Parts: sequence; structure tokens; C-alpha cells
Amino acid sequence: MEKRGLDTALVIGESTLGNPELLYVTGTTIPRGGIFLKRRHRDPVLVVSNIDVGSAKRGRIQDVRTYNDFGYHKLQEKHGPEHAYVRLIDSLLHSMNSHGKIAIYGRNEFSRLLSVADSLRRMGHKVTGEQDGSLFDSLRETKDRHEITRVRNVGLRAIHVVHGTLEMLRECTTSSGKLKHKRKTLTIGAVKSKIGALLADQGLMAPEGTTFAVGHSSADPHAMGEPSDPVRSGTPIVFDLFPVSPEGYWFDLTRTYVAGKPSPKVEQMFRAVLDVQLRSMDSIREGVPARQTMNLACDIFERNGFKTIRKTLKGDSEAARIGFIHSLGHGVGLTIGERPYLSLFSDDLLRKGHIVTVEPGLYRPGVGGVRIEDTVLVRGRRIENLTPLEKELKI
Amino acid sequence: MEKRGLDTALVIGESTLGNPELLYVTGTTIPRGGIFLKRRHRDPVLVVSNIDVGSAKRGRIQDVRTYNDFGYHKLQEKHGPEHAYVRLIDSLLHSMNSHGKIAIYGRNEFSRLLSVADSLRRMGHKVTGEQDGSLFDSLRETKDRHEITRVRNVGLRAIHVVHGTLEMLRECTTSSGKLKHKRKTLTIGAVKSKIGALLADQGLMAPEGTTFAVGHSSADPHAMGEPSDPVRSGTPIVFDLFPVSPEGYWFDLTRTYVAGKPSPKVEQMFRAVLDVQLRSMDSIREGVPARQTMNLACDIFERNGFKTIRKTLKGDSEAARIGFIHSLGHGVGLTIGERPYLSLFSDDLLRKGHIVTVEPGLYRPGVGGVRIEDTVLVRGRRIENLTPLEKELKI
Repeated sequence: MEKRGLDTALVIGESTLGNPELLYVTGTTIPRGGIFLKRRHRDPVLVVSNIDVGSAKRGRIQDVRTYNDFGYHKLQEKHGPEHAYVRLIDSLLHSMNSHGKIAIYGRNEFSRLLSVADSLRRMGHKVTGEQDGSLFDSLRETKDRHEITRVRNVGLRAIHVVHGTLEMLRECTTSSGKLKHKRKTLTIGAVKSKIGALLADQGLMAPEGTTFAVGHSSADPHAMGEPSDPVRSGTPIVFDLFPVSPEGYWFDLTRTYVAGKPSPKVEQMFRAVLDVQLRSMDSIREGVPARQTMNLACDIFERNGFKTIRKTLKGDSEAARIGFIHSLGHGVGLTIGERPYLSLFSDDLLRKGHIVTVEPGLYRPGVGGVRIEDTVLVRGRRIENLTPLEKELKI
Repeated sequence: MEKRGLDTALVIGESTLGNPELLYVTGTTIPRGGIFLKRRHRDPVLVVSNIDVGSAKRGRIQDVRTYNDFGYHKLQEKHGPEHAYVRLIDSLLHSMNSHGKIAIYGRNEFSRLLSVADSLRRMGHKVTGEQDGSLFDSLRETKDRHEITRVRNVGLRAIHVVHGTLEMLRECTTSSGKLKHKRKTLTIGAVKSKIGALLADQGLMAPEGTTFAVGHSSADPHAMGEPSDPVRSGTPIVFDLFPVSPEGYWFDLTRTYVAGKPSPKVEQMFRAVLDVQLRSMDSIREGVPARQTMNLACDIFERNGFKTIRKTLKGDSEAARIGFIHSLGHGVGLTIGERPYLSLFSDDLLRKGHIVTVEPGLYRPGVGGVRIEDTVLVRGRRIENLTPLEKELKI
């Protein structure tokens, strides 16, 4: 806060769900969210609804108060529900003797909170935005021991889910290019039901869904798999699992499989992707610019004759659809995509405690896609791969 | 937009997940989100990453473009990743001839987007906040035919999940006050695993978790149930299920059960809550102030000798923990809590097409809680209850 010249940091939200900043500072889930206030060199205060005091006290903030401690009911009666909220924050800032620059963090509906910020400014509060990544982005970027344990644990549970899914696929027979499970054509929907049950068994959720893209559709890295489509043999299956634990920590892993015999083209893509994936992981260490790992991945792909997203910069519009068409990776923690970004224009430096995905892929319309992704921890001179799961194309 | 004097509405987000405004305007899930721009009397434009064009085109916006159509790669090279975003929006606003008031919507990290808004203001754009509920809040508030169908469908699937859970509870025997399932003490965690599998079978998710609070802990309306705790007989089980479909529509329903024989106190609480729940649903119709339904619920509870949250306004601090200590209900749609609010200070009027919860409850520390909740549709002179599920205390 000192470096940023901040007197007061507020973190606001209607829920801790979908609000990683609020989840991070409170250290617990609070159904209706609240207002976290931290002045420089002072202990933080957390203000919540009276019915959320129990939830709030399970977190890391000692000093939990309620909205009514700051006269919220009276403010609502006097000013109406919308303006009462501005008055509540004003009253809170005054009672904490806040003066000087104030930053407001948290995920919120922007137009409403902009109106709150503008009102606070009119009342004389110095509310400021943060351009180059917020205070909490940089705090959240490197993970401490407890956070690492939590992510590692989600990873191990995610691997159980992959194994359980593979078991289902291995129970299948094949007939006219389609997988049959217990004599019925196996649909992507049925696989996803199985994945859902396996996630539930592991106490995980996948609120963003799961990618199980089969065949030509896997050539689109964001195709998630149509539930009614059959699972086909002899063609790539891109299985990208990104679950979250009830405490809010995510994990991200992808494997590409072929049931039956893969085509030579897909086998070639698989070998190229695996090579880049392993060499990219080798290139990750403390102090390396994140974009350097992306450039290395592009170098290797290009040397092996594949297009990369880098080529689009030189006007090759095909390179937006064919080849390695996305970034190498991204940070994972209380969100599924955060700093550092292993991408062409990233200005992030890799640091100890970063947890990042390494996920090269190759895509070819009319053929399909291949992607291999691990989530790894930067430990200094080397990484720890948090994804101890074999990488075999054939099921 | 006319009424609000807006020339341009922007809806922004890094994902449609957790961003109901962006989900609403695009009509589809887009993994990396995008920028939606609508000028008054013009067709909207949606700008996304090149790899999300496929996802974006499945939605309702005809005119889908990519960031690179507005020179984003070049802007990143020139200005760095953070400031390039401001330049991108500036370039987009210019190329759409936007002038006059601009509102920015969507759930985003506030401090970063405030910096973007302040930069746009310095560039001469008239960015304004919205105090009394945003444009999209009011658009989203009443549901059209398609939205109603989607919510109704989530409701029917949620009811299957409740039935499946009850089936598991009915398979149990009881020994020393604990439920046994297949000879093992049934834990709340095991019930939640079952619920997770049932949700997956129905193609639903519960990213905010599920409440299955047993015994004394159910006296806290936000206790969700400790996984390691046993499911006990003779004491209330508050089962609050709030799932969401892959298209982003939520549903909310609560039943309270007792396995075995309920105490007279809990039976009395149950009868009082059921009475209020039925009479509250009767009071809901077009044109009624939402707070009137809340006040009616409080009137009935108080007449029957129960405390309500209303009493805290008169200085009764016990009424924050004992009795009817929360609001009667809230809107449901692309979020699990939105306008209209059936609460003491609500300024909402009930309208045709509103979908709201009706969820009175009574809580007594040392005894437990009872809550009964349906999700209902306001149809004019009457409601349609979207929750055709029996209300029986005994399992």
C-alpha cells in the first residue's frame, strides 16, 4: 500500500463467489459478501450483514462488524436502498479516520459501483483506480504454502476424475466408428454426466463446464463438446478439466486421447505438442520473462513446420485458425486465469510461488486438435509439476 | 437508453461466467468474454478474441468482430497490455462514431476498470455511472417467454434432485439418533456427494454449493452443513438447493425435513412457516409493492408470537438471531439474487414476468431452523408456482 501511496484499501462484493479479491482478504466464503477495509499500518475490519457474522468469523479477519454498527438500517430508511450504500461506506471511512488515497477492489457490476465511487468523490474521498494490475493481483500472484497445498490437492482430486473417466472409456466396445458403453452408443453428454458424478465424489465443482471435444470439433480450442454427439474412435478427444474446490482454488489440466487407432497426422501433432510441452516446462524458472517461454514454444513449433499465433502479426490470417493459435499458459489460483500470463505481450517475470499452466496445442480444421496441459509450481531453478498424470495418446 | 440519456452502452467482461450482464446481451457463453457495444438506434456489435468467434456467433449478436479488427495486437506492442485495453475501447468508440453519454456495464475487477474509465474520461469520453439499478438490471428484471421456459426447466430438474436425495434418506435406518445408510453412519458429506451426482445427471451445477444443515446448526440460515457431521434424526434438516443450468439460469428451493419424530417446537415452527409461505404467495401479484409482501409475512409471524427482523429496527437485538431474521425473497434469473427484493426497504413494484423466491423461515439457537422456499412467476393477478414439490416435514 505504501508503494502505491494508498491510505485505505476497500474490497467490496455481494458475495465471495466470483469475487477472488474478497475471498482472498477474508479467507472464507461469505454468502452475501461484505466490505473489507484496511488502512495502512492498521488492522483490517470486515463489515457484513448480521446473518453472515458466523461465516465471516470463520475467516482470517479478527474484527468483524455488521452494517448496522454503522447505522445501515437508518440510512436505508432515510436515503433509500441505493444511496444508503454510499452513505454506509462514507460512514465507515469516517469512523476509521480514513484520509488520503482510497482504492476500491473486488468484482462488481461496474456502472453501479462507478456511481458509488463518483458519489464518494463528490463527498471528498480520493478514490483512485489502479492501472497496472491491482494490489490484490500482485498479492494473489505468488502463492504461499497454504495456497500451494490447496491447489495441489485440487490437482490430485482432478486426476482421480480423469482416471475414472478413462475407466468408462476403456469399458467401451467400438462399432462403426462409435464407442458403445453397456451396449448403448456413448454420447459426450453421458461422459459429462460421469465426469460430474466423479467431480462430486471428489468434492469438486466445474462451474465453467468441462471440455470433452471429439473429432473435427476439437480443432476449435473452445469447443466444449456437444452433449448429443457420439464419442467416436480414431479421432482426437480433447479433455480439458478445470475444477474448483469449495475454498475457491482452481486447477487446470488437459489430455488428448484417441480411442482406437490415431491417424498419422494426429500422431505427428501429438508428438510435436508433447515435445513443446516438456521443453516449455524445462524453460520455466524464477526470473525468466513469461513471454520468453511463449516465444520458445513458438520457435519449436515453427521449426517443426507448424504455424503459430505469432505469424498473425505478420499478416498470416490462417495462423489464427491453424497451428498453435493460443497462448502457452496462465496463472491459476483463486481464478482460472490470472497473472502471470505466458503470452506474446506479457510483461510478467516468472517468480517463486507462481502456479501456471503449460498448455501448448495444435489445431487443424478438418482434422482436430491436440492439447496437453499441466499445472506447475515455480520453485526457483525448477518447477514442481502438480499434475502427476501420464501423457498417452491411446486410451 | 433514451430515458437514461445514453448514447452508448458498453458491456465488458473477461468471461460470461459470473457476468450476467454480458451473458444477457450476448445470449451465449463466451469463454474469454468480450466487449459488447450498442449505440442508441443502432445494431449492437460484439468484439471478441479471434478464438472465441465461434462461441460468439452462437449467440444473438449478428455483428461479431475481433479485437484485431481494431488493431489490438499493434496497440499491445505499442502501449503494453494494460494501456492497450483503454486504447482498444477508445478505437472502438471512435470507429462506431460514439459521442455523448457512455455507460459501462458488466462484473469486473473494480479498481482496474475504474482506471480504464478515468483514462477514457481524460480522452474526452463521457463515461457515467448508474445509481438506481443499471439499465440491464431493469431489462433482466422481467423475464420473457424463453427465459421463463429455461427457469421452469431448471426447477423441474432441481425437483428430481430433491426426490433422489429423499430416496437416499428413506433407505436409511436409525441408530442412536444417527442415520445409517448401507450400515454406515450417513454423513452430510455423503449426502452432498449424492446431490452432486444427481445434479450432474440433470445437467445442473451448484457453484455456490448446497445447504444441507442438520440440527442446531440449521439455526444459522447460512450454515451449509459440515461434511463430516452425521445426519441426525429427530432434528431439522434445512435443504436449500440453488442450481444453475449451463445457459446460466438459476433456481432456488428449500425444504425442511425431520427424519423420525420432530419435536413439538419444530412442528410448531414448521406450521407457522408453511402458513406464512402460502399466504405470502397469495399476496404476490402485479402492482403490489414488494416490501408489502415482506411486511405481511412479518405481521403474520408477529401475530403468532415470533420475532422478526423488523424488531431490530426498534432496538431488539435478539431479533437479529431469533425468529424470522432475513428477507422474504428475491428475484432469480441469470443471478441467484437480483431485483425485485421482497425486503423491508425495497422500492420495487411486483410486475408480470418477475420470477421471485418466497422463503420465510424461523430460526431458534439451540433448536434449529425451518425454511420453506418456492420460486414463483408473477403472472398478473396470480402467480405460477414453478416449484411443484410437496411440503412435508417428515421424510
